[in-house]
Amino acid sequence: MTIGVIGSGSWGTAQVKILTDNGHRVCWGVRNERIREHLFRRRHNPQYLSSVQFDTNLLDVRLLPDEVIRSSDIVVVAVPSAYLEDVFAGVDAAALGTKKVISAVKGMVPGRFQLLNDFLQEKFSFPLSSYVSLMGPCHAEEVASERLSYLTFSGSDLPLAEQIAGLFANSYINTVVNKDVYGGQYAAIMKNIYALGAGIAHGLEYGDNFLSVFIANCAREMGLFLQKATSLNTGLSGEDLYRLYTSSVYLGDLLVTSYSLYSRNRTFGNMIGKGYSVQSAQLEMNMIAEGYPASRAIQKLNEKVLAHLPIATAIYEILWEKKAPEEGFRSIEKELI
Amino acid sequence: MTIGVIGSGSWGTAQVKILTDNGHRVCWGVRNERIREHLFRRRHNPQYLSSVQFDTNLLDVRLLPDEVIRSSDIVVVAVPSAYLEDVFAGVDAAALGTKKVISAVKGMVPGRFQLLNDFLQEKFSFPLSSYVSLMGPCHAEEVASERLSYLTFSGSDLPLAEQIAGLFANSYINTVVNKDVYGGQYAAIMKNIYALGAGIAHGLEYGDNFLSVFIANCAREMGLFLQKATSLNTGLSGEDLYRLYTSSVYLGDLLVTSYSLYSRNRTFGNMIGKGYSVQSAQLEMNMIAEGYPASRAIQKLNEKVLAHLPIATAIYEILWEKKAPEEGFRSIEKELI
Repeated sequence: MTIGVIGSGSWGTAQVKILTDNGHRVCWGVRNERIREHLFRRRHNPQYLSSVQFDTNLLDVRLLPDEVIRSSDIVVVAVPSAYLEDVFAGVDAAALGTKKVISAVKGMVPGRFQLLNDFLQEKFSFPLSSYVSLMGPCHAEEVASERLSYLTFSGSDLPLAEQIAGLFANSYINTVVNKDVYGGQYAAIMKNIYALGAGIAHGLEYGDNFLSVFIANCAREMGLFLQKATSLNTGLSGEDLYRLYTSSVYLGDLLVTSYSLYSRNRTFGNMIGKGYSVQSAQLEMNMIAEGYPASRAIQKLNEKVLAHLPIATAIYEILWEKKAPEEGFRSIEKELI
Repeated sequence: MTIGVIGSGSWGTAQVKILTDNGHRVCWGVRNERIREHLFRRRHNPQYLSSVQFDTNLLDVRLLPDEVIRSSDIVVVAVPSAYLEDVFAGVDAAALGTKKVISAVKGMVPGRFQLLNDFLQEKFSFPLSSYVSLMGPCHAEEVASERLSYLTFSGSDLPLAEQIAGLFANSYINTVVNKDVYGGQYAAIMKNIYALGAGIAHGLEYGDNFLSVFIANCAREMGLFLQKATSLNTGLSGEDLYRLYTSSVYLGDLLVTSYSLYSRNRTFGNMIGKGYSVQSAQLEMNMIAEGYPASRAIQKLNEKVLAHLPIATAIYEILWEKKAPEEGFRSIEKELI
């Protein structure tokens, strides 16, 4: 059995490390020839997690996503959401249909406001039952240094999710399995909005007391949104609701992202709070913080879900409708309990 | 109306700042004559939050708690839990009975494993209806610098809790009111255990990924304990459970304490994780971390509540039964989701 991994950023590189550490053959789709050549000559990715040495006997490195899919039984997609359409542009529906797709993408297909599973279903009639999301609070750098992390595998086909989880479990990866394939992916998107918001709060010079109240209330808003957005999938209520949304893939990921001082979302938000425009902050950072498109995607999604999202909405208005950050946070202040 | 504040540590000093900023007369019980003399000569507490200048026209400073109680209509108790018996040793039940007691104490009466309200009820037949707890994620230093903080006032008599909250609300203090007088106080005790545990995890060199999963699971354990421990008081279920326990006094306080790098609990735990004995860590720090007695108190309490507390129990065993921290955390690892 061969496992494909598409993506040579830090997250894709971490997946390949985990899988090859576990002795699996990996067909790795990387961005360019320079990376491929470097991998075989120096045994590491020149751009990300360069301390990780690979057993190149286990690697088959390709440049075209389509080749990775054809060569693999299971395909892990670990690219930024901005590249999803490109990755699947040349892919054949029949070839894809026999594979399992594991999404490690924390975002929606741009312009479509779709999760990867919905995009694949629409474009290739790819079945949800062959799809598993791989999420959780996991800085790739800590995978590189083999510090214990928890990954959550969510699939409508629970035995498949369990089988996939088994490929990743090892001494530094603990796995969790559930059926909440929509909720896990939405949580991964929403927490970027709140982490960006935490950055704005910091830029506005709120302190740690406020930050803790803000993040706790973000957890509430996110959980209640997820319940509404996925109630058909999960049917959860009562204590089980609290149990679910305090687990690693929901609250844990919100915490690791919001409290990380080095995350893009936090840094980007900090600049907004200090008075930079979105455009200047992007220019200055030379990258996009995922919370920025995420805030728009969740507003779109909420046109159907109709959850009460005062925090995410205020952040959206600051980022997309030029509301002054001070004003946005004054409205957030009133909502917090 | 005069408000008494007993306690001249950082938390008591912060209360007096808030109340005098709001124009209230405060009868302040401080530890010794030196502090009293300094307050009137220099207008600040020489030991804590010394940047805070008081309007001494609003202050009546006393050395005996009994005098504070006699001189006040409402008495805020803001001493470390270790001193509670001393504070109330010379107090007259009849005098106390006509007052309202506001507890800002984050701990139980030592040896008795009682919250202050239960202690007062047993010793003075003091009614729960005259008691309000004042809790929430609030580093006193941020009150000193007037950064927005949220305080939660919990009382079985909700109008009283609202009235008390009204005395504190101002431009940098937002107030929340609820009836969960037991849950709010238990949460303030439990979060110290988990913050100490976060310190142990850090000492054992777990990373940020693990820490986020650990704290998320602590939130679950704490919420489900609180529900069991206080079900008679609150009668909550379903979504309301999730709403309640993601608010500032529960999850917020857990977050601010667990993510604070400077808290005693975190520092103490870190030393335990690095291999210090409890005795050496106490000697080295020259103070007690509140999570240490708290871990024993919650075990005692749980003899009646019978909640599933694998995290708090492992921390208790490390601190009180000489379980190796590595071994305690190996058992915790298995419980996390």
